[in-house]
Amino acid sequence: MQCFKQVAIIGPGLLGASLAMACKQRLCGVEVRVWARRKETLAICLKKNWCDSAHWAIAEAVEGSDLVVVCTPVESIANYILEILSLCGEKTLVTDVGSVKGSICRTAQEQGQGNSSNFIGSHPMAGSEKSGMDFATGHLFEDRPCIVTPLSSSNPFDVEKISRFWADLGMKVFLQSPEEHDEIVANFSHFPHLIASSMAEFLSHLPTSWNKMAGQGFGDATRIAQGDSDLWCQIMKMNQSQLAKTLEKWMHSIQEAKSYLEQGKWEKLKEYLEKGSAFRKKWEWKE
Amino acid sequence: MQCFKQVAIIGPGLLGASLAMACKQRLCGVEVRVWARRKETLAICLKKNWCDSAHWAIAEAVEGSDLVVVCTPVESIANYILEILSLCGEKTLVTDVGSVKGSICRTAQEQGQGNSSNFIGSHPMAGSEKSGMDFATGHLFEDRPCIVTPLSSSNPFDVEKISRFWADLGMKVFLQSPEEHDEIVANFSHFPHLIASSMAEFLSHLPTSWNKMAGQGFGDATRIAQGDSDLWCQIMKMNQSQLAKTLEKWMHSIQEAKSYLEQGKWEKLKEYLEKGSAFRKKWEWKE
Repeated sequence: MQCFKQVAIIGPGLLGASLAMACKQRLCGVEVRVWARRKETLAICLKKNWCDSAHWAIAEAVEGSDLVVVCTPVESIANYILEILSLCGEKTLVTDVGSVKGSICRTAQEQGQGNSSNFIGSHPMAGSEKSGMDFATGHLFEDRPCIVTPLSSSNPFDVEKISRFWADLGMKVFLQSPEEHDEIVANFSHFPHLIASSMAEFLSHLPTSWNKMAGQGFGDATRIAQGDSDLWCQIMKMNQSQLAKTLEKWMHSIQEAKSYLEQGKWEKLKEYLEKGSAFRKKWEWKE
Repeated sequence: MQCFKQVAIIGPGLLGASLAMACKQRLCGVEVRVWARRKETLAICLKKNWCDSAHWAIAEAVEGSDLVVVCTPVESIANYILEILSLCGEKTLVTDVGSVKGSICRTAQEQGQGNSSNFIGSHPMAGSEKSGMDFATGHLFEDRPCIVTPLSSSNPFDVEKISRFWADLGMKVFLQSPEEHDEIVANFSHFPHLIASSMAEFLSHLPTSWNKMAGQGFGDATRIAQGDSDLWCQIMKMNQSQLAKTLEKWMHSIQEAKSYLEQGKWEKLKEYLEKGSAFRKKWEWKE
């Protein structure tokens, strides 16, 4: 049974607008309210069939909603959550789509006052190197992982409702503590992003005429480096300690490979490459 | 005007078989001869419509061919080239598809005796993380870069013929010296491969249950790590000095990013990410 009849989307960017579309496609008869900071954005939303009403006052968007999903840039999410918790009724659940969960969930718990338990964090791991409403699609979430990060004090029925919401949009839902979430994404998302960006930054200093000779391998390995640098800097800032730990550990691993290469330890290098290859191949079937 | 009437393909793996298909699709009336080491492979080739004749003796495949393309594993290419140069007539051109060119071209020049100028190296930058004839496709080369690596002593008309051959298969052809080629691919191909493999190797040590939560960013950034580890170890061995140089230089760049992260220099980190993003976005339109 579908739990939510009215969903408020706070911030109709790539994720927010895609979420609105997915709700309309997948949740029978749901009413979607949209809040945006800019009036121009609200005017555009109003013309879309995935938007039932567009609001400039957060209180209006939240009013009567069973679920509020904060989809603003990650650095601003915690503040919006606090504002929404101060406005919403007892029965309104609040979640978000932020890529970092520890600080957001801590802020909600410590400063959410009487309503703090209405918030349960989410991280739908869907996106694109593109950003903005123009690239939104209702299929963005299909078959992608979503990590829901309850606190030990969260009501299990509410956790179930939030999990069900993402599952109804086609996602594979996992539960993790906010801290463990941040460690996982530091390794599997923020670290690959920083490395891809670093490769692209490094290669940008080479003669321009060489770029044309780059092949698909370069293209794949650095695709995510195209992501919005402002957004990614926010993410890295919010997950600083976990990401720094991951990077520090990986430095030992790449130094190992470097020494095999420099010292001509080819059997060792082959084993090293093989471990990476086997691991990545095993993952493929989950795509 | 098409220069080659009979092409011998030495080694019908992913590249060799794709090349045979592409020749049949794109070069009007060409005869394709295939040489393979294993008789089972020859029997399979004989049933394919891209193979006019299959030979177990290299001399037979080479006989009467205007062009011989060596498509064997990169470590073995130089030896095959020497064998073919000792067998072929004056008018036969010989090229290869090896990912490293310096050592191959040097060997051909120094040990190719009277026929050494018949050889002009090529590196069609097409491939896949898959290997073997089963994944071959005649479209593999379309719109991909191909680097042709003549020596200063090469006959310019022969260079033109080899370049035209790859262009006829749909490739964008570039001329570089073998040494410059090796520097370019160390940066744009071998380096991203080693890093992608290293990320995958590093992540393989984390709890298995975390893999399921890896998203598309991880998938893209590590896709090339699936490549054949034996082949890639050969490539890294043959391009050891250039790759080690690239890796050493990049270490300074990633250390820079690491210090921004650790010291909370967010404006600096954002600029760094932005440089990578801008560079990668500019490249995209060439895909």
